[in-house]
Amino acid sequence: MGVDNVVYVGRKEVMTYVLAVVTQINEGSEEVILKARGRAISRAVDTAEIVKNRFLPDLKILDIETDTEKIEDEDGTSNVSTISITLGKGK
Amino acid sequence: MGVDNVVYVGRKEVMTYVLAVVTQINEGSEEVILKARGRAISRAVDTAEIVKNRFLPDLKILDIETDTEKIEDEDGTSNVSTISITLGKGK
Repeated sequence: MGVDNVVYVGRKEVMTYVLAVVTQINEGSEEVILKARGRAISRAVDTAEIVKNRFLPDLKILDIETDTEKIEDEDGTSNVSTISITLGKGK
Repeated sequence: MGVDNVVYVGRKEVMTYVLAVVTQINEGSEEVILKARGRAISRAVDTAEIVKNRFLPDLKILDIETDTEKIEDEDGTSNVSTISITLGKGK
């Protein structure tokens, strides 16, 4: 079981992240947390839905949290929304 | 208080949906449910975060649910992820 069971969802094909989750669960992780921000949030939700509908039907979405992060760049500060989706076998 | 306290988040500017939520709460709704699908999911999360961080700080995200809908078109059936975010004053 990996110490780090977080899968960061970015701009790659959704199946990249689906496979990362399935691999972690098959290697013995009890839970996997999908994290994304900005436009990748939709892809994190797609990943969770595809994993539980097509690959691991006994997995459930145990928790979904959202937050706001501040990003500093040369133009100043802007805000970006984030999401964390916890997938696991639950009780 | 409106019978229908659902705000459907689509392709418009995020502030359109922020204002819709703030208006519903100010008119007496106890809860407002943001619903979106596909790429608009990120915008629904932005809407919830902006409402609670900037406009109505005593509002909380009470629940977030995701699901998958089937869409039928001339090319056959495809799947789209959906999200429902319930905002309210909680207990």
